[in-house]
Formats: sequence, structure tokens, C-alpha cells
Amino acid sequence: MGSGTFKVLTRNTALINARAGADIRIVQVGARRDNPAADTRGVAVTRDVFEVARNPEVDVLVELIGGTTTARELVLEAIRHGKHVVTANKALIAEHGNEIFATARASGVMVAFEGAVAGGIPIVKTLREGLGANHIEWLAGIINGTTNYILTAMAEEGKSFAEALAEARARGYAEADPTFDVEGIDAAHKLVILAALAFGVPLAFDRVYTEGIGRLSLEDVAYARELGFRIKHLAIARQGERGVELRVHPTLIPENCLIAEVDGVMNAVMVKGDAVGPTLFYGAGAGDEPTASAVVADIIDVARALNVPPEARVPYLAFAEEGVNGRPILSIEEVETAYYLRLEVVDKPGVLSQVASIMSDRGISIEAIIQKRPREGASHVPLILLTNQAREATLMGAVREIEALPAVVGEVARIRVETLDG
Amino acid sequence: MGSGTFKVLTRNTALINARAGADIRIVQVGARRDNPAADTRGVAVTRDVFEVARNPEVDVLVELIGGTTTARELVLEAIRHGKHVVTANKALIAEHGNEIFATARASGVMVAFEGAVAGGIPIVKTLREGLGANHIEWLAGIINGTTNYILTAMAEEGKSFAEALAEARARGYAEADPTFDVEGIDAAHKLVILAALAFGVPLAFDRVYTEGIGRLSLEDVAYARELGFRIKHLAIARQGERGVELRVHPTLIPENCLIAEVDGVMNAVMVKGDAVGPTLFYGAGAGDEPTASAVVADIIDVARALNVPPEARVPYLAFAEEGVNGRPILSIEEVETAYYLRLEVVDKPGVLSQVASIMSDRGISIEAIIQKRPREGASHVPLILLTNQAREATLMGAVREIEALPAVVGEVARIRVETLDG
Repeated sequence: MGSGTFKVLTRNTALINARAGADIRIVQVGARRDNPAADTRGVAVTRDVFEVARNPEVDVLVELIGGTTTARELVLEAIRHGKHVVTANKALIAEHGNEIFATARASGVMVAFEGAVAGGIPIVKTLREGLGANHIEWLAGIINGTTNYILTAMAEEGKSFAEALAEARARGYAEADPTFDVEGIDAAHKLVILAALAFGVPLAFDRVYTEGIGRLSLEDVAYARELGFRIKHLAIARQGERGVELRVHPTLIPENCLIAEVDGVMNAVMVKGDAVGPTLFYGAGAGDEPTASAVVADIIDVARALNVPPEARVPYLAFAEEGVNGRPILSIEEVETAYYLRLEVVDKPGVLSQVASIMSDRGISIEAIIQKRPREGASHVPLILLTNQAREATLMGAVREIEALPAVVGEVARIRVETLDG
Repeated sequence: MGSGTFKVLTRNTALINARAGADIRIVQVGARRDNPAADTRGVAVTRDVFEVARNPEVDVLVELIGGTTTARELVLEAIRHGKHVVTANKALIAEHGNEIFATARASGVMVAFEGAVAGGIPIVKTLREGLGANHIEWLAGIINGTTNYILTAMAEEGKSFAEALAEARARGYAEADPTFDVEGIDAAHKLVILAALAFGVPLAFDRVYTEGIGRLSLEDVAYARELGFRIKHLAIARQGERGVELRVHPTLIPENCLIAEVDGVMNAVMVKGDAVGPTLFYGAGAGDEPTASAVVADIIDVARALNVPPEARVPYLAFAEEGVNGRPILSIEEVETAYYLRLEVVDKPGVLSQVASIMSDRGISIEAIIQKRPREGASHVPLILLTNQAREATLMGAVREIEALPAVVGEVARIRVETLDG
């Protein structure tokens, strides 16, 4: 990522300086590993990244090394030396942001992190400033390119999860160990940052519910489509009467909604504000230069504000006082959503009425049902239900009871549904 | 629009002040006409708007009266009295921005105008700051809700232009005199502002080429769809080797591109930057509260920066020195685009080869051809051509020559084509 930032800064120097009203220069590059291919055009390179954090010539440290151990020490060291910090490190901000911002506040320095969420999409600035007049009701994002690439390959090309993942790896869109992306941890990091900016809740990475896409079957992708939905791996934050929801999971969304059309590695974030209504912000969520676009925009902001008194700067997390929103973060059991359920049932009369009665006993109403004909040679048939909004705990109770029915074979496949219109 | 801003400011006061780090109060309301329905909650109201511009209690004047005569005088008067200005007036900025910014610079005050373009979408901030690292190659926007509403009704419901316009009027989406919207003047106002922010060219409203949607036929909407395109009224700014293009016209765009799905009164702006790649920003382009979302975001920015030295503030039009980009603005004759052409031809052999030879003589290559069967009882048939990129002047020469062919009936219908992928 450092090379992308270096490239953009050197390619667009005149333009960037004209926008910043300042002469932005790269004083020193810290790179822990030797990279003979990197052309740093005569800029001094050090193998000790901490040297940059202490270099008296440096006003702004740009942290692009990733990880949370050295990166945290490096950023804190820079702050203690009175440097401003620009970073694209979502894990660092999500997990150590509270400490970093507190230290930065004490030192009177800026910490900017546009590149940490959704790559080149300026969603941090949008939430922090552009939509600042709004009570943000909810936001929902495709903020991990790897999972969106896999889901697109499943939906458009009929590839299985395993095939799609292999293809993503071959194209460099997935790491050797894809857990971080596929299980939603990367998206969760980004989501807590967005929620803090939108709602004023504290950064609370450990409170995000995450569910990966590894168990999604092609069958469910196809049935979803038949029902007029697409399946996306959404990161959702919502504030309601009872509290704040923070969740990352596969989600059925209506096919006619704009974010359903966001395919491949592209990212998009929908934001619903009380004044502005629904909005959507779309662009490349990863990649050297898209990330550099965000990092350099932060550098311009910081350069312009070098002599601005700290109290007149935009607050780190959008609110003058952080964590002002006292609403509790709900556990997933307390969250209410609609559900897609797929049951495999023995093909005989009475099963549907048993299932329907379990649902109705718990006050869960059914919005749509598809009963399929048995597959060639199979003794059971898929039964697909769309429920109305129900509390997770209630729904799970119903699912367990349904799974215990003699006519129901195996586990109930379940995927949450969001209409994104409320 | 004033009432929307009043509503949002009073409804979200605590939140807005927490974001601004300031106590924002409405000191006085200026309203030229009496509105007994307006509840100003005890805030003083004056019928003389200039009183607000001179009120020593006022730090920021919010201009929402529209028009360019009184609005210009009011804004200049406020600036001369050392007030900062927030406005949502696109015509004012597009036509008098140069004068206003020069006066504001001399007085050391801010002029913010997020609400002037695309309502609640923070596209001004996005271009000015969020994408500040980028050389912006082009932008293309649906930035007039009225024309998009009409085009959507034509495409989705098969309504004629006149029917769709009548419906837009009935729903309050079109003025009694719709010229301003339908002819693209409103979009042109917004486009020059976007181009100034993106490219650093001066505001040059009189240099925008505009073409309305009044001559679009349902037939062309249908053929476009058959070819895999949608027709949108796009405002396009592009900077190339030869100069800057500024144009508003009906445009065929591929149906699989996200902006093709932006329907009804919604707005969206695509921006292509060299680092970030393609991006899209979507939301409500008009309406009391969406506009208020932008206006209040500006008020927050201004409130926060009240004590910031002018040189550390974000420049009015994104660049420290305005109009830095010396590239000429191209006339429409110099612009290169692909074209959709529909000819009505006498149904006999040889016509197609005559047309093809006129095109090839001028170096215009043909990408696709559809020849339709004659309509019931008609002696001529529609012939549809998609051309590759050609210079407007060259293409128009070919069109005139084609229209002069004995086998060609009437005028050639022509609509520009953009693939939005370059």
C-alpha cells in the first residue's frame, strides 16, 4: 500500500499541492523489508520504521504497514513525538482507536483514517461531515471485496463457494488464509468504525456479531433469486429504540435495490439519514491506488489543518465528545430481522401445517412460501419460507422446534433478509 | 427550502452541536413573504432579508431565497458585513460565483454551497476533499430529478414525453414552466460547479452545451433498450488532451452500469479519478430535507472553522488558486462521442450501403446496425446505427449527407452514447 501512496503523491504532486495550499514532500520512507523493485526516487529509506516516527523533519507519519502490534507502537510513538498520523489500518483503529485517539488528543495531533474503510470511497468524511446534519438511522455496506467477489461468482457463474474462493485466490483477491475476509472479521473492523462515526457510539469491535459466507449453498443463492432477492455479505449498523445493532452476515436484499447490483470486488455503503433519506456511496474498496486516494486525501486535510487549533478541527470520530451515544449495543438474540428459511421435508401432507403452527405459536408471520417438487430420486423436498420481522431468539426457538419435527431432514438453512427501505 | 433547514436544525440540535463542537442558534429569519403556517418557534422574523445580512448578532447568513438578483445582492451585502455565507443556490454560484468568491476572499469569509448540487449527496465535499488526491478524468451525473423522473416514466411505463411531463407536474416534480429543468439549464448550472471543483477550471456557465429531453421519442427509448442501453439525461464533464468538455444531453448508457439503474427523482454522480477509479454517489437530489441535510452540513463546517485562519480553510472551489487549469473548454463540434442514429428509410436494397459509405468516407466506423421490418402499412423502415467515437462536426456532416439521400425520410434521430468505462 505504501507504494500506491508514493506513486499517487509523486504523480499528482502539483494538483495535490494546489488543493492543499501547501508543499507536501515525502521526507523519509520506512520499510521493514528490502524491496529492490521500489523506486523511491532518491527519498531516504530506513529499515527502522520507528526512525520516521522520531524524525524531526516529519510532520505527518503515514502508517501503511498493517497489523496491530508494530503499527500500534509506531503510531503511538509518532503521536508522542508530536506527529500527526494518517493510517489505512482498520484493525488498528477498530481495536486500538480509543487508546490512539486519547493519546492524540493529549498531544494535540490529528489522526486520519479514511483509507481504513471501503478503500477509495470517502465514506469516513461523508459520515463525519457530509451527512453531519442527520440522525443516521442505519447503514449497510458491502465493505469486503473478497466476499463480494465470491458471492458474485456464485450468483452469476453458478460456482460453488469453494470454486469461487479458489478463483478469488488465483486472482489475488483472497489471502492464502482467507478466514479474516470470509468470516467477516475484516468487515466487522470497518463496521465498528462506521458505527462510531454515524451514531457516536464507542468503538466496540468485540460487540459485532459476525457470520461468514462459507456455509452458503448455491441452492439458496438460486432460490433467493427466484424470490426476487440477491444474497450479499452485508455489514449493518442500526440504531433503534432498544439499542444499536452491529452485525455482519449473508443477507437477502431485494434485487431492485441499487446495492444489489454491486458486484465483484467493488464496495458500496448505503446510509439512511433522517433528513437526507437513503444514499449510496460506491467505489473500489481495496487496491493500491484506491487506498492511496483515501490516504492522500487525508494527508491533504492534515497539511491544510497543521496550524488550525485542535478544537477547530473535525473530531476524530465525528463528535466533539466521543462515545456520547449511551444506547446499549444489542446482542444478536435481541435483534429483529426477517428471515429466509430452507427446510428439507419428507414429501407428505401435514408438514407445512406443522411448520406454520410452530411459527404462529411464536407470533412469527410468514410472508411467502415456496414448496419445490422433489429432486430426481429424492424422497424429500425443499420448503422455503420468508418470515416477517421476528426477534432472533424467538426465531431460533422456532427453528429448533422445526428441526425436531420427524418430517424435517437435517438442519434448517437460514439467512437474514433486509429490505433496506425503512 | 428555508423551512427544511429550520426543521432539521431544530430537530437535530443536540447532535448537530455535538458534531460542530459549537452552539448553533438561529438568530433571525428573513422571509420576504408572510407565511402564517411557518412555526419559527419564537425566532425573530423580518420581511427585509437585508436586515439579516447586517445583523451584528449573525455570524453566518444562510441564503435559500433562490434566484440570482436579490440573492446576489443579499450574499454580497452579507459578505461585506463580514458574515460567512451558506447557500443552496446553483444559479447564483454558477453565474456569479467568481464575483462572490473574490468578494468573500477579500473579506476573509467562507462561502459554502453543498446544497447547490445534487441536494443531499455531499458531492461538493467529495470532489473538493474526499477525492482530492486524484486527477479527475471525468464525471457524469443525473443531477436533475425532473428529467430523470420523466425519462423513468417513459422507459418503465411507456409514457410519452408529454404524458410523463404532465405526471411530473401533477406530483410537484416539475414547475409550471418546466423549461429550466427539461432543457438542461438547471443541470448546466450544477455541472459548471462540479467541473470547477473537479478540474480547477473557472466557472463558465455560458460554455456548457445543453440539449433537452423534449425531442426524445418512445421509439428511441425502446430501441435503446433492445441494444442493451438506457437513456438518461446526463451532465458530463471530461478533461482530455485537447481540452475540457461540458455538456448536458440525453445519453445512451449501458444498462449494466450502476447509474443506469438510478430512477425517478433520485440523483447520482459518477466520478472517475486516476487513483480511485470509478465511483458513484447516490441520493435525493432535491426536496426540503435532503437539501437541508447539505445546508446544515455546511453550517457545521463553517461553525467549526469560524476561528480558523482563511489560508487554512478549504478553498472555495477546491484549489488554492482558482481557475488554475488553463485547458480550453471545447465547443460541442470538437467533442468526440459515439452516436445512436435512427433513420427512416425506404424499404429497398442499396440504402444501407449508401449510408455505410457516407460513414466510412468520413472515417466513422459502425459498431452495430438494426434494421427493422416495416411497420404495419408503412412504406419505410427504421434503420438504427451505433457508431464508434467520432468528432461531432464530422458526424453532423455525415448526418446531413444521409438526410439528403432520396431513400431517407425526414430527419435522422441522434443521441450520444457513453460507455462510462474509460
